[in-house]
Amino acid sequence: MFKKFKIPDATIGRLSMYSRYLIEADKKGITTVSSQHIAKATGVTPAQVRKDLAYFGEFGTRGVGYNSRELYNYIMKILGLNKQWSVAIVGAGNLGRALSQYKGFNQRGFNISCIFDNDPKKIGKKISNINIYSFDSLAEKVKDFNIKLGIIAVPASAAQEVADKLVKAGVRGIINFAPVNITVEENIILRRVDLAAQLEYLTYYLEEI
Amino acid sequence: MFKKFKIPDATIGRLSMYSRYLIEADKKGITTVSSQHIAKATGVTPAQVRKDLAYFGEFGTRGVGYNSRELYNYIMKILGLNKQWSVAIVGAGNLGRALSQYKGFNQRGFNISCIFDNDPKKIGKKISNINIYSFDSLAEKVKDFNIKLGIIAVPASAAQEVADKLVKAGVRGIINFAPVNITVEENIILRRVDLAAQLEYLTYYLEEI
Repeated sequence: MFKKFKIPDATIGRLSMYSRYLIEADKKGITTVSSQHIAKATGVTPAQVRKDLAYFGEFGTRGVGYNSRELYNYIMKILGLNKQWSVAIVGAGNLGRALSQYKGFNQRGFNISCIFDNDPKKIGKKISNINIYSFDSLAEKVKDFNIKLGIIAVPASAAQEVADKLVKAGVRGIINFAPVNITVEENIILRRVDLAAQLEYLTYYLEEI
Repeated sequence: MFKKFKIPDATIGRLSMYSRYLIEADKKGITTVSSQHIAKATGVTPAQVRKDLAYFGEFGTRGVGYNSRELYNYIMKILGLNKQWSVAIVGAGNLGRALSQYKGFNQRGFNISCIFDNDPKKIGKKISNINIYSFDSLAEKVKDFNIKLGIIAVPASAAQEVADKLVKAGVRGIINFAPVNITVEENIILRRVDLAAQLEYLTYYLEEI
């Protein structure tokens, strides 16, 4: 089902950064960039840039560099971003609201199609023009909007139930923001964003041993 | 100044996961665990567990395993989490509110000490019992509360100014949630959490090529 091979997560993250630089470069009229340019703009080494790209084939012309637009398009295709994706957010609390209004999604082709909650006071309202639907209508709406990606922004105690329901409805990729580990069947891509763990990347380096 | 060596980011993330499993195991009375146990609970291979731990020395007894509590304490020390950290959140919008109320911080020793905003309607109010202060008082409060970590949850256009002010006030580690790249001097630890990029880890695997 998934034809893509496993590359390091960090490479995917860097490809995302490179593509953001490349589109900016292209907009500024910089048609050709070197691995040095990409590296400098994204805070990695030129060797790392070349290694990351080498996973996917041969790019660029030795001694000349890469065509910004071409490399951008190719990376976007690698990342599955040469199309639009419908996304559902489950949970209309503060985090769900923040994610609904996050400006960074749209520019990468992610459309938040609907928000789900089980609070009668929220259902039927809108956030940034996105409808909040009843959690009970999740299966129906996921099909209507052809939603393949779900974001879990509910309390930890409800996260597993939400995940099960998303998967049953046809969602194939899930980001879990709830501070709890959940499980899904093997053919579903699950990623947990642990906000506390983000701070731990800092304290690892800050605490002197 | 920073005595720690550079290990892969992914290792730090996994150590964080291992420690969460270990404290749970210890609470359940499981005093000894193997790399297989840790691996199974956290979704990695036993070899990966052993490799990650090997960066920091020799642990456990061959054929027996690790003492859950001892390994937990050691990992927490590696991560700089054998103490409490004061954290400032800048931006009292939806994301700032969500982060202020995030239950996962406290259990890892992170205390949100104050929130800063420049909206007169928000200043003086509280979120989850945390005071919202004027952005102008940032330098003073960062010193008062001995804050070393800052979270940027402001619009992209304000992120660099906020970072500069945090660093000037004495903050040494920053998480940037704004969808923009910012720069800080070299001795500051900066980590950007790109919420759109989180979805791209999913689409990479979901989009068939």
